[in-house]
Amino acid sequence: MSKLERPFDEELKTLKEKLLEMAARAEEQIALAIRGLKDREEKLACQVLEREEAINLLDIDVDEMCLRLLALRQPMAADLRFITSAMKISSDLERIGDLAVNIAERTLDLLKSPQLKPLIDIPRMAQMAQDMVRDALNAFINGDDKLAKEVCERDDRVDQLNDQVFRELLTYMMQDAGTIPRAVDLILVGRHLERIADHATNIGEDVIYMVKGKTIKHHIEEGRATGLKTCAGGE
Amino acid sequence: MSKLERPFDEELKTLKEKLLEMAARAEEQIALAIRGLKDREEKLACQVLEREEAINLLDIDVDEMCLRLLALRQPMAADLRFITSAMKISSDLERIGDLAVNIAERTLDLLKSPQLKPLIDIPRMAQMAQDMVRDALNAFINGDDKLAKEVCERDDRVDQLNDQVFRELLTYMMQDAGTIPRAVDLILVGRHLERIADHATNIGEDVIYMVKGKTIKHHIEEGRATGLKTCAGGE
Repeated sequence: MSKLERPFDEELKTLKEKLLEMAARAEEQIALAIRGLKDREEKLACQVLEREEAINLLDIDVDEMCLRLLALRQPMAADLRFITSAMKISSDLERIGDLAVNIAERTLDLLKSPQLKPLIDIPRMAQMAQDMVRDALNAFINGDDKLAKEVCERDDRVDQLNDQVFRELLTYMMQDAGTIPRAVDLILVGRHLERIADHATNIGEDVIYMVKGKTIKHHIEEGRATGLKTCAGGE
Repeated sequence: MSKLERPFDEELKTLKEKLLEMAARAEEQIALAIRGLKDREEKLACQVLEREEAINLLDIDVDEMCLRLLALRQPMAADLRFITSAMKISSDLERIGDLAVNIAERTLDLLKSPQLKPLIDIPRMAQMAQDMVRDALNAFINGDDKLAKEVCERDDRVDQLNDQVFRELLTYMMQDAGTIPRAVDLILVGRHLERIADHATNIGEDVIYMVKGKTIKHHIEEGRATGLKTCAGGE
């Protein structure tokens, strides 16, 4: 059917390797950004900025590879889903890289002032988010919908931890207005980590769709419940 | 070549219509969310929550339609790029819908307290973001890379306005700790609008890629400049 020299399976293998490399780099960027923040190391924050380009280039590379595979191989069924999922996952990983950069930018801002407090919960959130990214990618590579579902379920815990971080920082600000700019920076870091976990969840959802052929995207999110309760009463 | 009954062009037309409907709904959600916030109307915020589902269903619909077109039509070159771009744009529109819901949730929270200040800049940002979404979609439908480029350029203005909103709210918080929870809610609304503009920019970049066949994704962003300056000095 195909006149190309490399077997299709081998091309898919290369695609998988590129995505795993992207994921490893994205994970490393999160770790580096949070270490820079926690240990107040400007150098680490700067490394995050310098290393972003590599993930961006991989994203373009994966995208073009997928388009080429779609055009030249005209894959069917499972392979088609794998390739279109790969394109989406690549976008998610690229945005995770952007969010790590956002954290590094907040760090550079925070380093201009003395430390507000030793950080405990934010590094815990970061670890959870990193684990989600790694597991989501492994679920993708191995077509493991069980692991993917488990990744999606962990998202709630990251959200809860972020709420806790948020409330604690609010208390700081209320007690001492001098802490406000730093507390707001840390609130934003929490948000960035929450969004990283959201992207990992998107990847998990894509994997379930790819494996099971049905979508669990747009399930009712727990955050929504509060709003809906108010609204049901308000109708 | 194809044994299907409907002409391919007609299916592409349906796909375009679905994306335009999604974009119109996403725009409307932003407008509704901001009107609810500005006029302190709980009912409008609730409408945003209720209407989210429709966009989510359209996203699934577009996704499945694209997969079907890729599998059954095995499109080449321009059509292939159009369809894979449609899948990405659909994800962006769906996330814009999510962000409008996030704004509505902040509104429901803000309505529990008296108004902090009349809102001027946030509705302006919202209008800019809405215009970007609409123009990005029009650029996509018409393959208009000039308009797409123009949308991408407008992103900076939204970012600047958001920085201004942020600084003003910081001043409120510093002067009166009692304003902090409300000011933080408004800071988050600003962030959500900024991200909506980012998604519109993503769409614009995809359109340029689709039309020109080269990527302008991952150009150096203006926000990055600050960080890099610090870092270049720090090396």
